[in-house]
Amino acid sequence: MDSIKLYHQQIEQAIKETKYGSNPKELYDPIEYIMSLGGKRMRPILVMMACDLFDGDTTKALHPALAIEIFHNFTLVHDDIMDKAPLRRNKETVHIKWNDNIAILSGDAMMVKAYQEICKAEPEQLPELLKIFNDTALKVCEGQQMDINYESLLKVSIPQYLKMIELKTAVLLAGALKIGALIGGAREEDAQHLYDFGKHIGIAFQLQDDILDVYANADKFGKQKGGDIIANKKTFLLLKAMEMAENNRYLKEELQQWIAAPQFDPNEKVEAVTNIYNFLNVKELARNEMQKQYELGISALKQIPANEEKKQALIVFADSLMVREV
Amino acid sequence: MDSIKLYHQQIEQAIKETKYGSNPKELYDPIEYIMSLGGKRMRPILVMMACDLFDGDTTKALHPALAIEIFHNFTLVHDDIMDKAPLRRNKETVHIKWNDNIAILSGDAMMVKAYQEICKAEPEQLPELLKIFNDTALKVCEGQQMDINYESLLKVSIPQYLKMIELKTAVLLAGALKIGALIGGAREEDAQHLYDFGKHIGIAFQLQDDILDVYANADKFGKQKGGDIIANKKTFLLLKAMEMAENNRYLKEELQQWIAAPQFDPNEKVEAVTNIYNFLNVKELARNEMQKQYELGISALKQIPANEEKKQALIVFADSLMVREV
Repeated sequence: MDSIKLYHQQIEQAIKETKYGSNPKELYDPIEYIMSLGGKRMRPILVMMACDLFDGDTTKALHPALAIEIFHNFTLVHDDIMDKAPLRRNKETVHIKWNDNIAILSGDAMMVKAYQEICKAEPEQLPELLKIFNDTALKVCEGQQMDINYESLLKVSIPQYLKMIELKTAVLLAGALKIGALIGGAREEDAQHLYDFGKHIGIAFQLQDDILDVYANADKFGKQKGGDIIANKKTFLLLKAMEMAENNRYLKEELQQWIAAPQFDPNEKVEAVTNIYNFLNVKELARNEMQKQYELGISALKQIPANEEKKQALIVFADSLMVREV
Repeated sequence: MDSIKLYHQQIEQAIKETKYGSNPKELYDPIEYIMSLGGKRMRPILVMMACDLFDGDTTKALHPALAIEIFHNFTLVHDDIMDKAPLRRNKETVHIKWNDNIAILSGDAMMVKAYQEICKAEPEQLPELLKIFNDTALKVCEGQQMDINYESLLKVSIPQYLKMIELKTAVLLAGALKIGALIGGAREEDAQHLYDFGKHIGIAFQLQDDILDVYANADKFGKQKGGDIIANKKTFLLLKAMEMAENNRYLKEELQQWIAAPQFDPNEKVEAVTNIYNFLNVKELARNEMQKQYELGISALKQIPANEEKKQALIVFADSLMVREV
């Protein structure tokens, strides 16, 4: 785990040292603010680890890693406007601390800053790195739009949902790994295996999030338990429950009533919907899908002919992001 | 002028043929919509002309030209949200036709599409082209933020205003020309002269806009006469008038009263403020600044050792954008 700590430090250091710009300060202060809020820095760490997996020079991966982290934070700034989210990492979101216009515009500037960082890669690698970066960025936009669409859609299938979380969440982990791999000198084929590893682990990670929202120890995770249920968020659990309740008129009606209720006691709703989930055993089904995705990821990783210890470090890192007890 | 027509056709054709994407359609339909609204396509034409000025192969400039046009339209989509503008080219703006969230997100996707287009340039030129593109994009964001800031600022100096329009409007013309020049094989020095030509012509172009808003034949230009006056927009004319009225207590009060008036007859306000402008002769001063910028642009162009006819074509094109009678 030492190398992960080292990469984390290097990334934090690089973020601190990055000159985003100074004038006008309404454009650049929000960038410094959101970038300084911390977080696990999971994506840039993956860039570094992927580069190292192929015995590459990780100093060459640092700026592209930063590009991924800036891009990720840009998506948070714009998503928070769209979701009208007041808080991010327990601090005010940019559009609340400043305003919507500033959040739109400083988000735009962050996207350009991300490109500036990736352009610090070796010139001969730039075309292939940008291809992945552009492709990934566009998919993230597609995933976010699908997520918005699904909010107002009556019926979303499980495959549709899995595709959405793949695009919205997983491809950025995948793209981060592929970019790191190519910088590290990986063959296209191996870089693609690593991409698939990231994609499946990313999907598993999001499914875990869905499960934790309902079944985690609320104190431990610092989030309101059942927040997704209260907000009618279309998670794997809800979609699976809706699908299964199709054959059970009573359950179907109860679920629909809770979803449609304009006013309700939050605790009561969370308890009632959780009971339906338990009755239909959807937690188990979500866990199975999560496990399947996790294993698909591991098997993609195993196909790469690289140092076993370094591959193990990636698995350990992925595991550290997963909470095993769900 | 034949080559301009040809470039215009090639660009329209390329825009029509570009596959922006299809799924989800809420993300891609707005991109097709805004790109199809037309306009003078001035910026991509400048990319092509700049490439040709150095006897370059203009087919290599087509995708970077498209990148500039997509980027420009992206800024329109996001600016229109910020300005709450209902119309663009006499059609509904994206955030009105769809909604704010879709306008934010499809704007983001347009930025990525712009990068995809510029990445179609020759790989060995990519680093230098991206450097200009990133630099220009960031300056456009800075200019837009300055414009927003100046709306609520009591006092904006003429140099501050000129810097703002340089960043918000002129650098994109300049960047378009420099990108075209480099694709055409220009030396850095000459590409920079062409950049300066674009920058000064761009500033002159914006100053002309300020003048036309008040003094143009409204029927001919299809805009409400004095729209900037009604909206208290800080144009060169208003800022110069405010500066000059500092020494004239009566005028200063009258101007401030019109600016502060919560309710007013629009025609009356336009007439009164225009009278102040006329009294202070600010139209003449704006025209002088415009002429100065225009000449700075021409003199930068003249320093380039290129075919005189091709240089002349650039001047003719710039002139066609300027309305000489103001």
